[in-house]
Amino acid sequence: MDFSIIRVARVVMNVKDLDRSRDFYVNALGFVETESDHEHMYLRGLEEHCHHSLVLKKAEKPGVHAIGYKVREESHLDTLEKLFQSRGMKTKWMEKGGQKALGRTLRVHDISGIPLEFFCEMETVERMLQRYEMYRGAKIQRIDHVNCMVPDVEKAYNFYVNELGFACSEYTATEDERIWAAWLHRKQTVHDQAFMNGDGPRLHHIGFWLSEPLSIIHACDVLASVGYASAIERGPGRHGLSNAFFLYVRDPDGNRVELYTGDYLTSDPDFKPIRWDLDDPRRQTFWGHKAPDSWFDEATPFLDIDTGEEVSIQNPTLQRRKPEFVI
Amino acid sequence: MDFSIIRVARVVMNVKDLDRSRDFYVNALGFVETESDHEHMYLRGLEEHCHHSLVLKKAEKPGVHAIGYKVREESHLDTLEKLFQSRGMKTKWMEKGGQKALGRTLRVHDISGIPLEFFCEMETVERMLQRYEMYRGAKIQRIDHVNCMVPDVEKAYNFYVNELGFACSEYTATEDERIWAAWLHRKQTVHDQAFMNGDGPRLHHIGFWLSEPLSIIHACDVLASVGYASAIERGPGRHGLSNAFFLYVRDPDGNRVELYTGDYLTSDPDFKPIRWDLDDPRRQTFWGHKAPDSWFDEATPFLDIDTGEEVSIQNPTLQRRKPEFVI
Amino acid sequence: MDFSIIRVARVVMNVKDLDRSRDFYVNALGFVETESDHEHMYLRGLEEHCHHSLVLKKAEKPGVHAIGYKVREESHLDTLEKLFQSRGMKTKWMEKGGQKALGRTLRVHDISGIPLEFFCEMETVERMLQRYEMYRGAKIQRIDHVNCMVPDVEKAYNFYVNELGFACSEYTATEDERIWAAWLHRKQTVHDQAFMNGDGPRLHHIGFWLSEPLSIIHACDVLASVGYASAIERGPGRHGLSNAFFLYVRDPDGNRVELYTGDYLTSDPDFKPIRWDLDDPRRQTFWGHKAPDSWFDEATPFLDIDTGEEVSIQNPTLQRRKPEFVI
Amino acid sequence: MDFSIIRVARVVMNVKDLDRSRDFYVNALGFVETESDHEHMYLRGLEEHCHHSLVLKKAEKPGVHAIGYKVREESHLDTLEKLFQSRGMKTKWMEKGGQKALGRTLRVHDISGIPLEFFCEMETVERMLQRYEMYRGAKIQRIDHVNCMVPDVEKAYNFYVNELGFACSEYTATEDERIWAAWLHRKQTVHDQAFMNGDGPRLHHIGFWLSEPLSIIHACDVLASVGYASAIERGPGRHGLSNAFFLYVRDPDGNRVELYTGDYLTSDPDFKPIRWDLDDPRRQTFWGHKAPDSWFDEATPFLDIDTGEEVSIQNPTLQRRKPEFVI
Repeated sequence: MDFSIIRVARVVMNVKDLDRSRDFYVNALGFVETESDHEHMYLRGLEEHCHHSLVLKKAEKPGVHAIGYKVREESHLDTLEKLFQSRGMKTKWMEKGGQKALGRTLRVHDISGIPLEFFCEMETVERMLQRYEMYRGAKIQRIDHVNCMVPDVEKAYNFYVNELGFACSEYTATEDERIWAAWLHRKQTVHDQAFMNGDGPRLHHIGFWLSEPLSIIHACDVLASVGYASAIERGPGRHGLSNAFFLYVRDPDGNRVELYTGDYLTSDPDFKPIRWDLDDPRRQTFWGHKAPDSWFDEATPFLDIDTGEEVSIQNPTLQRRKPEFVI
Repeated sequence: MDFSIIRVARVVMNVKDLDRSRDFYVNALGFVETESDHEHMYLRGLEEHCHHSLVLKKAEKPGVHAIGYKVREESHLDTLEKLFQSRGMKTKWMEKGGQKALGRTLRVHDISGIPLEFFCEMETVERMLQRYEMYRGAKIQRIDHVNCMVPDVEKAYNFYVNELGFACSEYTATEDERIWAAWLHRKQTVHDQAFMNGDGPRLHHIGFWLSEPLSIIHACDVLASVGYASAIERGPGRHGLSNAFFLYVRDPDGNRVELYTGDYLTSDPDFKPIRWDLDDPRRQTFWGHKAPDSWFDEATPFLDIDTGEEVSIQNPTLQRRKPEFVI
Repeated sequence: MDFSIIRVARVVMNVKDLDRSRDFYVNALGFVETESDHEHMYLRGLEEHCHHSLVLKKAEKPGVHAIGYKVREESHLDTLEKLFQSRGMKTKWMEKGGQKALGRTLRVHDISGIPLEFFCEMETVERMLQRYEMYRGAKIQRIDHVNCMVPDVEKAYNFYVNELGFACSEYTATEDERIWAAWLHRKQTVHDQAFMNGDGPRLHHIGFWLSEPLSIIHACDVLASVGYASAIERGPGRHGLSNAFFLYVRDPDGNRVELYTGDYLTSDPDFKPIRWDLDDPRRQTFWGHKAPDSWFDEATPFLDIDTGEEVSIQNPTLQRRKPEFVI
Repeated sequence: MDFSIIRVARVVMNVKDLDRSRDFYVNALGFVETESDHEHMYLRGLEEHCHHSLVLKKAEKPGVHAIGYKVREESHLDTLEKLFQSRGMKTKWMEKGGQKALGRTLRVHDISGIPLEFFCEMETVERMLQRYEMYRGAKIQRIDHVNCMVPDVEKAYNFYVNELGFACSEYTATEDERIWAAWLHRKQTVHDQAFMNGDGPRLHHIGFWLSEPLSIIHACDVLASVGYASAIERGPGRHGLSNAFFLYVRDPDGNRVELYTGDYLTSDPDFKPIRWDLDDPRRQTFWGHKAPDSWFDEATPFLDIDTGEEVSIQNPTLQRRKPEFVI
């Protein structure tokens, strides 16, 4: 492969009311607001030296414009364009300056229809890692991963592993060895990109990294204190898969955010992906809690990179089951 | 009042298999085993200088023999005998030496039929508070409280407050100001003894104090690691009432134990009891999680101090409701 | 004894610049500011329902006006007046309304010359315990204790234990069994009042309770972030004596504050005081760190209840040594 | 560069008494003992799927045989051999089977004289990450980095960055822009390999990663409980540089181990190395604590890959200063 994707770097997502979102993301969860205008809010974690990792865009309807990946070199964007074009996939350039703080950006739809973007350059800003007086809520450190529901996980898996160079850390399989869900990474953590079987493509959640587990307990306390108890959807709990300590919350528009800490280093190329049996009861959520139905059923649609219309959603090829260990 | 009850000090409870219970209480939860014989196991927390705070007694059927309270002076036992006799309640002496490590003990049935015992003297042993190499599982520090289901909470409340000298820290009331549940204390914490409306008298749970919240997260992880994930019944979560961070687990016989940390000092006599409205949605469990039905329905029977037979159970005078803030 | 002291309840102390103190106590350490005027600032912890536990008074020179104790009943103030007068000690009444939020108050000098005050009544305010969005810095919960240097610890010990009804939890003794330091309590914690051998009487520090140990780590980080790294005098560390996890900081006027969490329940009247040998190396600060000289040498003077002049300071009767386990 | 180094993967180090070392590393610190024989002990962290990350070798005198790096492909070993030979550096092969659990290994001396080894293959074993019942002491997760004192940091820096492909995350410089210390990484953390100015080459410490900060507090408590309080050399504290929460301990042979948690992700190639001024007081250890002299002066010698004799030690080219921010 003559290109190198570094990591998932941002998500661009619609919200209906920027002030309402600011209250949730900044005041309650503790994101840093880099800057905002009437149409956008640019948020980042305390550790992040880049301009933002989450763009909230004012719009009437929910939807995700793009999952953004950072690449190693500017020229890799051109290589990626050729790859996607050779596969007959839609591509689109956004020139430097067209998007706040971003260099030249390639937008595409991936093999499941998910809108991706690739860029090499993002402006940097002051890192707040040692500005502890600014720590509040969940003390968000950085973007960690996205998880998408897709109708054909194996197809997505093969494309990301074989064409884009991702490695698999863990996966779940049916008894006849069909891949039901997969955790894929470029950076040296459990995942940048997960896929799970379901009506899709839809964005299931964006995961943000926290530096230690009490941040999650404090986040629950703060959310409840300021009136967001109902935003807590699942957890706190321990994932069997990935080993992370987690909490899932829903933002005021219903977008799902995972607070996540405590997975492991995946630097070694000879790390053998961990297989979880879809029906093995010992593989459930580590502490045995069940996830609510909403967690399996609800997700955010993606938007077409050209038209802005919702990407059409397909039924999954495998049975819609609700194993409790999926994360 | 010419007697002074110090605090709840122990519970004597049946289990079917002492080895099975040792595995749960000592190996998984981290209790210290002071000593055992073929019929009993004596357990304590790391902070406790007294011989034990939990006695497990080998028996075919579950049941609680007594909730034990420590009094300030030996003569207070005689005063208490007179009080209970004057109210027509059954009393019974157990002489020093009759029970392991205990001085002279008065057993009675309280106004709800709960078997209580009072004693002044218990042998002391080495305190393990600074033997950190022995810390494991939930790192149990000390007994904190018991919670009992009774059919008439107001009757119990009046007896404990007016006759036994307990103070109330918090309570829940119906719209017509009937007390639905109450948290009563002698020592300077939120409770030694709680009562909640329900079929009773039954022991709902015994609460043990932990020194910090990560002990609960680690306890969940250890319980799951050694095969007790299904013992986790509710939590971890934050109680609105009491503010404690909690986990409820069920021992192998179904007895419920609460791991509990983070309430507040109740030293001040002019602290006004906090009232919670039974139907006020803002008063729910702080993070908004629901408790499972088992938590409301299942509890351990008490045993008669003379016959050892189960104390008969009455339906509650108030409606059986399941408010989510009850702790 | 026909009076009952509940607990140490407040300290009234001079500072030079109220804004500078606000920045330290409120913005950095996380105290709640109940109210202020040009001459006073009234601070409390998140758990405290009473109006304040620390009064900072604007003045040119440092000094402590009083250590305040809450008593159970109003009439106990009169009993205490008689006790102090019978011992030939100076007393002084401050009527209700004379001090912000306080009922009638008796000020005295104790046997070491320390200005004490006793009161039964203090106005109550909203408790912020579950206003987690207000938690910051050290997340101060409540006042816990004061520690005073006095020239004759045994004399102070005898007065507090025999005349005022305090109990001793732990003490250090010389090889010839002279008491070198003592930890005395009325509420059910390790101490309300500690005494250590030294030039005195002087206030060594005021201890505030935190609910869990990571609050201390976060307090260090915040203090350093906002320019108060040099305020950190000792710790974080574990006290052998009391078992608490601690940090000592110096406010902008040099007054010493201890952040303190994790001691144990002292409810039992038959708890035998723990003796520490002054020269036993195994009794040192639990992790073996040395305290700096400033910690042994520097303290805040007390002020006369009538004249406001500094109470004169005497040399200690025992040798001035620096055992490392003193807390 | 036509080779790729993955990460620092192990250290092979002498100790005098394996049982004494087991007590320290396994019983107190919580390492997992993979296996041992009369001459070696193989240790790993709870997260590690590889056979070991620390080899203790029984010997009369202290010394480090090799710092081991894992490479991406077997053939990269041959490329590295050519590189070192072309620079006139000593190389030596150890065939597969010659060392426990290891494939073919290339040993060399680097430009400072440090014995390195490179290998691609190490046997894998059960990962204990979710065996929480085995967690104890510091709950060691994995090897993180090594820090070496060398007489010429710039020379080492240039060799590792320009010849071996390391990236620099942070560094300290003198007023005339000479590099006094540097933090270099291959995996996506702050460092695999740090260099600091001093008599060398010597191994200053091996850093092991923990998953959260309370593990360090608990490690201190356990070390003190079992008699290793004097092994605690520095900390706990927060590094300004790297932002990690740390503790330094000395093993029974004087080798230094750092317990380390909380640095940041260094995945981005455009991350600009953070410069710290050697004399800027604001750059000191974040909380302002001083490191003891032993921390600056004492370190473990390296051993020649052929003779086993101590590698000779040179005086540093820059002044021997003791800035407090060095980590």
